[in-house]
Amino acid sequence: MTIGALQIDTQSAEPVYRQIALEIRRSVLDGRLEPGSRLPATRDLARQLGVNRNTVVAAYDALATEGWIASHTGRGTFVVERTAIDTDEPTDTASDETLRAGFSRTVECAAVGGLQSIYRLAISDEGISFVGSYPAGDHMPVESFAASLQAVLEEDGAKILGYGPTAGDYGLRETIAETMRAAGSDTTPENTLVTSGAQQAIELVFRTFVERGDAVVIEEPTYTGALSVLNSLGARIVGVPVDEQGIRPDLLEVALERHHPKFLYVQPTFHNPTAAEMSPARRREVVEICRRHRCLIVEDDWAGDLRLEGERLPTLHALAGSADVIYLSTFSKKLMPGLRVGWLVASTTAMERLVELKRLQDCGTSPLIQAALDHFLRAGGLDEHLKKTLPSYRVRRDTMFEALRNHFPKEAVFSRPTGGLFIWVTLPASFDGNALFAAARRRGVLYSRGDLFHGDGSGNNCLRLTYSAADPTEIQDGVSVLGSLIQERWPDGPHEGSPGTAESMPIF
Amino acid sequence: MTIGALQIDTQSAEPVYRQIALEIRRSVLDGRLEPGSRLPATRDLARQLGVNRNTVVAAYDALATEGWIASHTGRGTFVVERTAIDTDEPTDTASDETLRAGFSRTVECAAVGGLQSIYRLAISDEGISFVGSYPAGDHMPVESFAASLQAVLEEDGAKILGYGPTAGDYGLRETIAETMRAAGSDTTPENTLVTSGAQQAIELVFRTFVERGDAVVIEEPTYTGALSVLNSLGARIVGVPVDEQGIRPDLLEVALERHHPKFLYVQPTFHNPTAAEMSPARRREVVEICRRHRCLIVEDDWAGDLRLEGERLPTLHALAGSADVIYLSTFSKKLMPGLRVGWLVASTTAMERLVELKRLQDCGTSPLIQAALDHFLRAGGLDEHLKKTLPSYRVRRDTMFEALRNHFPKEAVFSRPTGGLFIWVTLPASFDGNALFAAARRRGVLYSRGDLFHGDGSGNNCLRLTYSAADPTEIQDGVSVLGSLIQERWPDGPHEGSPGTAESMPIF
Repeated sequence: MTIGALQIDTQSAEPVYRQIALEIRRSVLDGRLEPGSRLPATRDLARQLGVNRNTVVAAYDALATEGWIASHTGRGTFVVERTAIDTDEPTDTASDETLRAGFSRTVECAAVGGLQSIYRLAISDEGISFVGSYPAGDHMPVESFAASLQAVLEEDGAKILGYGPTAGDYGLRETIAETMRAAGSDTTPENTLVTSGAQQAIELVFRTFVERGDAVVIEEPTYTGALSVLNSLGARIVGVPVDEQGIRPDLLEVALERHHPKFLYVQPTFHNPTAAEMSPARRREVVEICRRHRCLIVEDDWAGDLRLEGERLPTLHALAGSADVIYLSTFSKKLMPGLRVGWLVASTTAMERLVELKRLQDCGTSPLIQAALDHFLRAGGLDEHLKKTLPSYRVRRDTMFEALRNHFPKEAVFSRPTGGLFIWVTLPASFDGNALFAAARRRGVLYSRGDLFHGDGSGNNCLRLTYSAADPTEIQDGVSVLGSLIQERWPDGPHEGSPGTAESMPIF
Repeated sequence: MTIGALQIDTQSAEPVYRQIALEIRRSVLDGRLEPGSRLPATRDLARQLGVNRNTVVAAYDALATEGWIASHTGRGTFVVERTAIDTDEPTDTASDETLRAGFSRTVECAAVGGLQSIYRLAISDEGISFVGSYPAGDHMPVESFAASLQAVLEEDGAKILGYGPTAGDYGLRETIAETMRAAGSDTTPENTLVTSGAQQAIELVFRTFVERGDAVVIEEPTYTGALSVLNSLGARIVGVPVDEQGIRPDLLEVALERHHPKFLYVQPTFHNPTAAEMSPARRREVVEICRRHRCLIVEDDWAGDLRLEGERLPTLHALAGSADVIYLSTFSKKLMPGLRVGWLVASTTAMERLVELKRLQDCGTSPLIQAALDHFLRAGGLDEHLKKTLPSYRVRRDTMFEALRNHFPKEAVFSRPTGGLFIWVTLPASFDGNALFAAARRRGVLYSRGDLFHGDGSGNNCLRLTYSAADPTEIQDGVSVLGSLIQERWPDGPHEGSPGTAESMPIF
């Protein structure tokens, strides 16, 4: 085992755990570490490298997430056999080696992100799925959208099958801006950019501002796709814990003082993955703190319209204005993911660069889809759709919440979300989430593992359970299976949560 | 004028001319250089900075392309008045300044590219346009595509309005792979990635391999969008001239020896902008040279099916195989730009990373559009479409070629392309292309300026004239206007081409 040859660079922008993970990955790729061989115990490797043991644990977790290694309780951690790795494994040739040596840091670091694992699971057809955050097929407004497509093709076919403005169809941007103005935002079509889903909006914004080594503050936990992008850009990720009202202002203030980040990436409404909703007072406080520290806010409002109860709260964008907040959202979650249409709103200064980058990336989103979507929205299609789907989500949320109360141990922590698409469950810190995930998958139940939403490999003891895409019977069956698997594995000794990391864990 | 404060960093990956351009741009932004003020003569600034005069000329050209400065013959070069800059100019606030200071190098460098200028002009409705490289509206197969959309929505609506695999709809990838196999390429659906147009394919490939400062060999001139992406990534661009058969193998060999580039980006078939077509022997030679130097080839075959005469030639991908060539193409030019569907084919090793990066950028291209396109292709829609459009392009090409012979001075150099969408015209090196462009625009005729296709600001004396998107009457009228403007401006002294730069100029 030649991991000892690894040079830890404490000055590097690359976190130490990722340096370790990368070196092990390289060792597997170039044959120094053979499939099936056993990795050193975390305690031993930590001593050998002179790092904290948790750092090695984080590295192993990241590698396990990616499918390079697997832990077997009592036996140790092993390099996974090639055939078992969940990728199309290449047959190496001389050219392959040349390719591999030539990869940019962007893709090397992107591979560490969790988006890959979660997305692959989300679109799989395996068993009962609580994975992806989106509606089931029975909620798609297929016929009314088909009618909108037909209408715009008849009206304007030649034009919308040609190139369009990179910033997006002007009509759709007007419609979006009007809706946002109605919700208190100072938004114009000129400040609105249509993107290929919220994922592209996130990527464009982050790439416009982040240079390798720049600090960015995120909620801990946060959306996997945002973490993956930040990793790919080599950002220094500074996590601030959330409580049941979202990001903690006291710790946010500390993070801004210490790290002078490029921006705060935050989801005030139905936070992914915890479903936490920031109170109005907390929203004002966050805006005020960021303004004081001249920190840009990137507000991800992917779930804004997915409210199951209570009143709509003002967005940070509405509170602070577009000079201080870049706002982004999507039609994927509230309407149809297959359109690949999201949007962002930013000040003119930022917009100029965002549009340029969008143009480099794809010249613009399909004018045909945009025109059809605008037609659909103007005909009231979204309101009608939400009137049908939200009551169904309410039923599914309540079904899942009751099933969790019935089948999960009373020590499991979760709350009843006021909106969004999932429930976040926290088990004791010592709980082996990897083993649970594997066992559940064998029993035909899939969910999103909590560690995918953490930048540091922690959160292994948490589960994100999506209620929106499964029917009530599936929800009851799936939660019951999970409950019995958890009861079987319930730690019988006192809980071993390590107090040192409590601050960086979600509070509820 | 405080440009003298500029520190030239000769060790930087940033070319010196771009360092100069950036500093001037900054001076305009922060008010050190006021609108209307005169820039030093290129000779003076070159002496002051201790650089070659051509370097300063290149910097000024880049700034003029972007609309920051303008030259007036006999009077000098001036900072353009703000209102005349072709962007939405921001009203500065404190937050704007913070934003501006925070931009990443990616977007700072992207701004230097020409894609912005060309794309904006291409989608404008001004006068007679020879700008964009795509079919006119009268060639869109609106009805048959609408039928395909309707069919797949009826069949599979809920599924194709949900999320799909990031690599693309499997059926479409099969269809693409089958077509490529029929043309001699060893391609499978697994090695095929559906992208949002060829632009995204280019961006994904370049970003997967290019680290700031890496050398990349391109044809000189080459596609603007590729140059813009390379600029944004901070690549060291090494241009190799083309002749009437495409890239020159003797100079390619020299470039590979000297620069050990990450890859060669090349368009062997109907090269953009010169329309040159590589002979079969030249294709084999290029593949052989790259193989000898272990240099990856990125083959952009955007115009592959747009052949107006002669036999189909083997792609480099068919000749060399997918371990050595990453192949990319698009449905935008031969079918409909508004679909935003292109694709790339790469070896498994590269594909793994390309798919990951695509997932980060947008999670995948619209499954709805992909399913409809696949339905359209399997129903023979593309063949039918090409049977209608290619004869029309032949007429338009011949009309433009004849008009050029009738209206342009006999010293202008151009050839009759065997395919693609445009004709490339070269005027004497001393010809002031900026003045011609401005005069033509005033007379209602638009074209793509040659300097946009050069990484170094040269090519000012060249024009790319698209014949595909204008009808024959417009073509005759537009070329006649250009001809008379050129005759008016024809240099009466001996041609002043500088022999030192001849090697880096297109030969025809």
